[in-house]
Amino acid sequence: MEKLTQLQTYTKQNNLDVTFISNFEDVQYFTGFGSDPIERVLALVVFPDADPFLFAPALEVEDIEKSGWPYPVYGYMDHEKPFSMIADYIKEINPNPQNFGIEMNNLVVDRFQALQTEFSNANFDHDVTPEVQTLHLIKNEAEIEALRAAGKEADFAFKVGFETVRPGITEADVAAEIEYQLKKRGVMQMSFPTLIQAGEHASQPHGDTSTNVIKDNELVLFDLGTVHDGYISDASRTVAVGTLNDTQKDIYRVCLEAQLAAQAAVKPGITAAELDKIARDIITKAGYGKYFIHRLGHGIGMSEHEFPSIMEGNDLKLVENMCFSIEPGIYIPGVAGVRIEDCVRVTKDGCEPFTHTSKLLKEIVR
Amino acid sequence: MEKLTQLQTYTKQNNLDVTFISNFEDVQYFTGFGSDPIERVLALVVFPDADPFLFAPALEVEDIEKSGWPYPVYGYMDHEKPFSMIADYIKEINPNPQNFGIEMNNLVVDRFQALQTEFSNANFDHDVTPEVQTLHLIKNEAEIEALRAAGKEADFAFKVGFETVRPGITEADVAAEIEYQLKKRGVMQMSFPTLIQAGEHASQPHGDTSTNVIKDNELVLFDLGTVHDGYISDASRTVAVGTLNDTQKDIYRVCLEAQLAAQAAVKPGITAAELDKIARDIITKAGYGKYFIHRLGHGIGMSEHEFPSIMEGNDLKLVENMCFSIEPGIYIPGVAGVRIEDCVRVTKDGCEPFTHTSKLLKEIVR
Repeated sequence: MEKLTQLQTYTKQNNLDVTFISNFEDVQYFTGFGSDPIERVLALVVFPDADPFLFAPALEVEDIEKSGWPYPVYGYMDHEKPFSMIADYIKEINPNPQNFGIEMNNLVVDRFQALQTEFSNANFDHDVTPEVQTLHLIKNEAEIEALRAAGKEADFAFKVGFETVRPGITEADVAAEIEYQLKKRGVMQMSFPTLIQAGEHASQPHGDTSTNVIKDNELVLFDLGTVHDGYISDASRTVAVGTLNDTQKDIYRVCLEAQLAAQAAVKPGITAAELDKIARDIITKAGYGKYFIHRLGHGIGMSEHEFPSIMEGNDLKLVENMCFSIEPGIYIPGVAGVRIEDCVRVTKDGCEPFTHTSKLLKEIVR
Repeated sequence: MEKLTQLQTYTKQNNLDVTFISNFEDVQYFTGFGSDPIERVLALVVFPDADPFLFAPALEVEDIEKSGWPYPVYGYMDHEKPFSMIADYIKEINPNPQNFGIEMNNLVVDRFQALQTEFSNANFDHDVTPEVQTLHLIKNEAEIEALRAAGKEADFAFKVGFETVRPGITEADVAAEIEYQLKKRGVMQMSFPTLIQAGEHASQPHGDTSTNVIKDNELVLFDLGTVHDGYISDASRTVAVGTLNDTQKDIYRVCLEAQLAAQAAVKPGITAAELDKIARDIITKAGYGKYFIHRLGHGIGMSEHEFPSIMEGNDLKLVENMCFSIEPGIYIPGVAGVRIEDCVRVTKDGCEPFTHTSKLLKEIVR
């Protein structure tokens, strides 16, 4: 509950009467209770000088109580009006709150307006997103342990995948085997659907795993991760099935050089933009700059969409225990795609990767 | 592109200068191009008298062009400012738009404000959500075909699950086998993580599949579905592993009676609330009313969070080709949980279920 206390302190210091946390991943971050309510309302409501409460779909209440949450939890049924109920519970604690903090990067317009309607004299111009992102930015020891554990599961997934991949089976077959073996070990949740892309299919970095048959002499891209105690792993490897031609070898070599150079440059004080540039310059000098069409990396923790974003224009200086991906890629439409990715933690003088599967080109000949 | 045309017509009839679609599932609905941009911006921008455009992360552009989208698509890189770019593209078509339609149930506050800042003289009080939901509400023949196909995949999943489930293995083992066999058939995407809950674990209707070992003489709840051409299936069955005691038998019998009665009552003209009441009354009369803690059903199509919501208070009259779930459940904390669910389409005089796995109590003795 250390983080919840930090949020209460922030609420007080910023003269907020109510902090309204609507992002379900942030609810988990502050309360330990994790559940995606889909279209239903799940909210953590925090006050400067009173106990917080959780507001949740009725069918989540039993789970929340069992999770050890020590404060009130109020449930609502599908036919009830959640924001009118939330307003009543808030007014029990503060009949006339003036200043609300909200997550502007998560709260949707109609819920925002529903809250405004209930408290028509209050101010809603305080965005707590930057503070929540800052809290997320630096991981504590428990979070790092979970990220390490998730990384180990990703390494196991690569092992299964490399043993499975061969010409004649589909991308889907490889993904199926990986997820099956993980589930058999009790790893229930992937951080995203396991991505296996062979040959030119990998030149679409956000495409899906397909029933495309893997052929001999192709690069096959693996991008995968798991969820461990709410924290995710995310790693990519690209392997050779059969023997590569010069172009395939060259893009792998350049991508690897970029990845290793950026990873070696991580230390406190370097900026996110500088790190991106180190990898990008190597790829650009080799003539593949226009095929590296995304940022170098993203923050990692309970989700893939957190800070720091490792990209041009982000002059944030890295600090110990920030965690993010380093994932240069080269995608030549119609030819091939390569991506190599570890997630790392900034240490006192460098970084610790969460995945340890070798990045040397692996040639799989069956 | 029939639906896109309908949205253009709506834009014109409502004197909107710009309709801004931000929900990625709706982007797929109107354009045929489906991708979850996670934290990046993906938007469909529609005008009354000019071609629409898509605005997307750069790494999606190749896929969008290949998808057959016939209008412009503009990409942005991670370091660029998407809303300033979107504003420029809008101004190329209309230098001074006055009336914007937005999806208030999807657009988040900071993006809403970014758009407002770019067009500080415009009105943003038109919510297109009701129109988009209305369009989604009645499925056309192609959509129904996809829902049928997804239903067949769910039936196959139950078959695999019923062959696999036995005392001594974990819930996770059963889920792993189901998803493995589906992937081997090329079904790449589940509509949600396959839910297997045994015994008292099933009394938490929104819990997760766990490494809980299935015991003899338990009810085991299956809730699963797949995605077929963007359309989902969602179905639940509860089976007996071993022999049931009287309580277990009774809650199954009551839940089944409620499910069958509600499904038999579906026809054009009945309201969503009346349907909910038919099932709820049966469960309440049997003494289990307080254990049926969610609505009877939800709309189904490209997502599970669409209309109609089959619940108390929703006086919407059902119309042919509305599609939704019928899923009563009885969850007795610490004892057991039962849910039985088919998704159906309203026909001229009744309904067509998309799943056909028998709902008679199945006793699996190994």
